[in-house]
Amino acid sequence: MRIFSNFALHVHFNPEIMTDLITSAQNPRIKNLVLLQQKSRERRKQNRVVVEGLRETGIAVANGFKILELFVCPEIADSQNYQSIAGNALLTLLSSTVFEKLAYREGSDGCIALLEPKWLKITDVKLRSNPLVIILEAVEKPGNLGAILRTADAANIDAVIVCDPLTDIYNPNVIRSGIGCVFSRQVVACSTGEAQQWLKENGIKSYAAELTASSAYHTLNYQGPTAFVMGTEADGLTRKWIDFCDERVIIPMLGSIDSLNVSVSTAVLVFEAMRQRGFSGAGKQ
Amino acid sequence: MRIFSNFALHVHFNPEIMTDLITSAQNPRIKNLVLLQQKSRERRKQNRVVVEGLRETGIAVANGFKILELFVCPEIADSQNYQSIAGNALLTLLSSTVFEKLAYREGSDGCIALLEPKWLKITDVKLRSNPLVIILEAVEKPGNLGAILRTADAANIDAVIVCDPLTDIYNPNVIRSGIGCVFSRQVVACSTGEAQQWLKENGIKSYAAELTASSAYHTLNYQGPTAFVMGTEADGLTRKWIDFCDERVIIPMLGSIDSLNVSVSTAVLVFEAMRQRGFSGAGKQ
Repeated sequence: MRIFSNFALHVHFNPEIMTDLITSAQNPRIKNLVLLQQKSRERRKQNRVVVEGLRETGIAVANGFKILELFVCPEIADSQNYQSIAGNALLTLLSSTVFEKLAYREGSDGCIALLEPKWLKITDVKLRSNPLVIILEAVEKPGNLGAILRTADAANIDAVIVCDPLTDIYNPNVIRSGIGCVFSRQVVACSTGEAQQWLKENGIKSYAAELTASSAYHTLNYQGPTAFVMGTEADGLTRKWIDFCDERVIIPMLGSIDSLNVSVSTAVLVFEAMRQRGFSGAGKQ
Repeated sequence: MRIFSNFALHVHFNPEIMTDLITSAQNPRIKNLVLLQQKSRERRKQNRVVVEGLRETGIAVANGFKILELFVCPEIADSQNYQSIAGNALLTLLSSTVFEKLAYREGSDGCIALLEPKWLKITDVKLRSNPLVIILEAVEKPGNLGAILRTADAANIDAVIVCDPLTDIYNPNVIRSGIGCVFSRQVVACSTGEAQQWLKENGIKSYAAELTASSAYHTLNYQGPTAFVMGTEADGLTRKWIDFCDERVIIPMLGSIDSLNVSVSTAVLVFEAMRQRGFSGAGKQ
């Protein structure tokens, strides 16, 4: 069904533009969107990433990602807001029934964008003079990766390197819990070997967060080029990282358990480095 | 069906004890367990809390909670491990089909305990001489509350006060993501008014984490009695907390977004206080 959308749906944009309205979740484009949301393999194959929410999409656009298609539910979305970032994207309107099938979150703003992802190689990473880097070994939970990406954004981290990842960096839950910070930072998925080679070549001192380390994290100096290396939620770091790193650090724990949530321990280390650097040493971009 | 469990299932415990084996998810006791997992109202009404995992159950027992019933899947569980904490609890065996219906997590260790919760009042909280307290206004996501409880445990926080909570402190996801730390700390759900009255009466200085605050968190001194007051994931603190608090603090953010995950920002503040106190000032219990 092809309609003048501002006429039929009282959306106030240019009536010259013909816009599709999709009212069935069985529509092949909707079925493909669902597939892209659910399957990492499809995102790779089609070279597409699905972004829900204008805020997240706006961060992507501000960081050089291009919107290819924008799906909008006019019953929910604020037309001024989404038109400001739509650019030349193909605009498609969705009925609220179809949108609700697609929406991942409650209180969604009615916009879903299809972008072309960037698959950054570690050799493509641009570093500032005194870099601060987060390295994650095999992070598993999208929510944890998302929270770490928010921390990376807030602390203006140079790069987040995800080694042998068990979750795709463009998983919809990473984008959602990271509020789009996967687009604002240099995020790389690579092998452990590549990451270790890169650390050596760039003279970055590496600190393994490790539960049997003897150095309390706050007693060391992170004012030089620094990488914090964090293990999985379940098992911590493997030997190939513990043995590689220049230092091993521990966050002192005084209670019943011996570990913190990985996004929490990452933030404690990163913000201690930022404190030591006067919240500027990482360099502003 | 009543069997000698060590005979029929090769579980090595005392054959004198007659133990039920449940093989149907339609069994009323199983249906009731599911109800208790799912409904906060039922947990309140029956005064029961469901705990999955021996580690979490062990932390509860070590902190004075009593196991009333222990459900064990002998195909998964290590009999030595669960017998060591079972005490006089009513032991029931579950077939793996029934257990899988109940299990919340992958890689579960085959044990689910039914405990009597403690509904601690704020006036019951015992404080040490130089307390460090976390106050959460209307925290919503169980995973965030769980991560904060892990931080509270690691930093040996005196109490976690949840004001006007939108999630039950005994939600199974709070217990799981908090690895049982809801049992190791003093955790209170109360009204904002009660919490504010209590802070005043106990001479605890309160710091509102607030995105428009002018004091960077690391420039203030937390060596005296300190409460960090954290807002909801979506909206931050309401005016009734911002106006009440002695100080407002901000974690400097240099990137595209203006907020951190609430469990992350709580940890950054708490560990800065711990750093200033030399990781001992909160007093060991």
